[in-house]
Amino acid sequence: MGEPRFDVCGIGNAIVDIIARCDDAFLESHGAAKGHMQLCDAETIAKLYDAVGPTIEISGGSGANTMAGISSFTGKAAFIGKVGRDDFGGVFSHDIKAAGVTYETPPSCSDTPTARSLVLVTPDGERTMNTFLGVSPELNSGEIDRDMISDSAVTYLEGYLFDRDEAKAAFRDAAACAKAAGRKVALTLSDGFCVDRHRDSFLALIKNDVDILFANEAEITSLYETASFDEAVVRVRDDAGLAVLTRSEQGSVVIAGGQSTSVPAFPVANVVDTTGAGDLYAAGFLYGYCQGLGHEMSARLGGLGAAEVISHIGARPEVNLYQLAKENGLFG
Amino acid sequence: MGEPRFDVCGIGNAIVDIIARCDDAFLESHGAAKGHMQLCDAETIAKLYDAVGPTIEISGGSGANTMAGISSFTGKAAFIGKVGRDDFGGVFSHDIKAAGVTYETPPSCSDTPTARSLVLVTPDGERTMNTFLGVSPELNSGEIDRDMISDSAVTYLEGYLFDRDEAKAAFRDAAACAKAAGRKVALTLSDGFCVDRHRDSFLALIKNDVDILFANEAEITSLYETASFDEAVVRVRDDAGLAVLTRSEQGSVVIAGGQSTSVPAFPVANVVDTTGAGDLYAAGFLYGYCQGLGHEMSARLGGLGAAEVISHIGARPEVNLYQLAKENGLFG
Repeated sequence: MGEPRFDVCGIGNAIVDIIARCDDAFLESHGAAKGHMQLCDAETIAKLYDAVGPTIEISGGSGANTMAGISSFTGKAAFIGKVGRDDFGGVFSHDIKAAGVTYETPPSCSDTPTARSLVLVTPDGERTMNTFLGVSPELNSGEIDRDMISDSAVTYLEGYLFDRDEAKAAFRDAAACAKAAGRKVALTLSDGFCVDRHRDSFLALIKNDVDILFANEAEITSLYETASFDEAVVRVRDDAGLAVLTRSEQGSVVIAGGQSTSVPAFPVANVVDTTGAGDLYAAGFLYGYCQGLGHEMSARLGGLGAAEVISHIGARPEVNLYQLAKENGLFG
Repeated sequence: MGEPRFDVCGIGNAIVDIIARCDDAFLESHGAAKGHMQLCDAETIAKLYDAVGPTIEISGGSGANTMAGISSFTGKAAFIGKVGRDDFGGVFSHDIKAAGVTYETPPSCSDTPTARSLVLVTPDGERTMNTFLGVSPELNSGEIDRDMISDSAVTYLEGYLFDRDEAKAAFRDAAACAKAAGRKVALTLSDGFCVDRHRDSFLALIKNDVDILFANEAEITSLYETASFDEAVVRVRDDAGLAVLTRSEQGSVVIAGGQSTSVPAFPVANVVDTTGAGDLYAAGFLYGYCQGLGHEMSARLGGLGAAEVISHIGARPEVNLYQLAKENGLFG
């Protein structure tokens, strides 16, 4: 199979984040579930957008954020995801390539708009997302670049893609393609509500196709329908070869067979916007994994990535993460 | 003429800023004049955009920034400027209205894109702008809302509009309309290069139609083709009824007839991005002017607005400027 061209190829929704600040009362009055991602149609997101204050726009998308993070750690990353032929599509394409990520998915020929997520950030730094997927689910199996996947040590799949059947098929094909090339498949569960919508599909995928599973506490307990994190750990130990579970300020746990490695969170002086915390954790972990740095160091690099991205607005790193890791003595 | 509905109506280019960080070598290698605004065609800006790193998008436009600032000071502001029917047009329209500014100019029916400025921010916080005007100059005389202008205590004109003949005519009509309604006309010279392109037009306008002139040191010395700020002050005293001159960290000088009032700059701990400094100075000054607070207090409010906006990325205020002024004891 040879040395792969890429460390990680991510497949996900190609999204531009529209970031606004609001208070908890605003979330309540608009029925937005705090801390979650909610899918919206064009009309609903337009109504919500009309109601918020001035915004800033920054490229986002969970899997895309992770690939930008891997690149910032000096890893070799590629991304597959669909944009439209509009300003936001141009912004997304520019930013992912400018981050050093190989991105070759052609924009859609339709007039359907590029996906956008209205990210509402409350004073506590928590983000609540309202996503209009637009053209993103038009990514179909025929558009999955099989050469790119075969040439990546890890194919990283974003759980959010399961929210559209067309994308789900593409997702499964990508996993099969990676497997056939003898590569690894990683999956992130993305969101507790998303897990709730696709529990059985996710469980089957985890048992049969996934080598590395990423989930936070809400997602893993939702997957196993339990209130107990410890019980979820026992269950996931049987189902997944390697499970990486994040617990916000309580750090993360890496579970591989009989072994469990706990790593504390990287300290953050001021949590500004939690958008991208899980995405950048996955970036650090996958970079370490592909470099063969071991579970503990990989988890520490994940924690560093998460800490950097929640200390400012937006879900893409603002500094070079490799340098930041070096400055913090993480590479010895 | 009665109590006007608006304190200030601004007329300017409706622009979305695309903000990227770069070093001085990047500016040099792309022939960008540091600290200035340079007009680009679509091809040139696309080439430059391809060359920069990841960006963030925030609504901008000099006059629009000033109107957003006046609204943040609790003043009543309106804006006239043209966007296209694209994502950036939607972003601009949303943000100016969300800032509390009355904005009723219909988007263009053409396919010409909304204006965008690639704002390159160097490590010293200085910004260098490369602007593609797109649909913005399509604003013609017929689209100037005469009722809105007649109903504004001050009509504020952005010098940048002079860069297109169609807009120049609209600009002159607006000034005439304000005069006919017994209102005041304010002008900002916008940029030293812009002054160089339109010196005679500006001088005629200042002598005949302008009640309040805003300029920074580079602009006023360019207007009078002198290296000496003091000489420019002597010249402008004869030409303008009220001239408000800003000098970055040296503060500002208000010149009215025989009187000259100097005010120090408001202290800034960390200059992050100077974009919008002049725009937000004008916002504070015009708010104070319309409230009848006198030249010194108006200049202090201007300094406060400038200090807030240069302490973060983007040219729109991030906090409520009225509250900030109160917290700093500016309203006694």
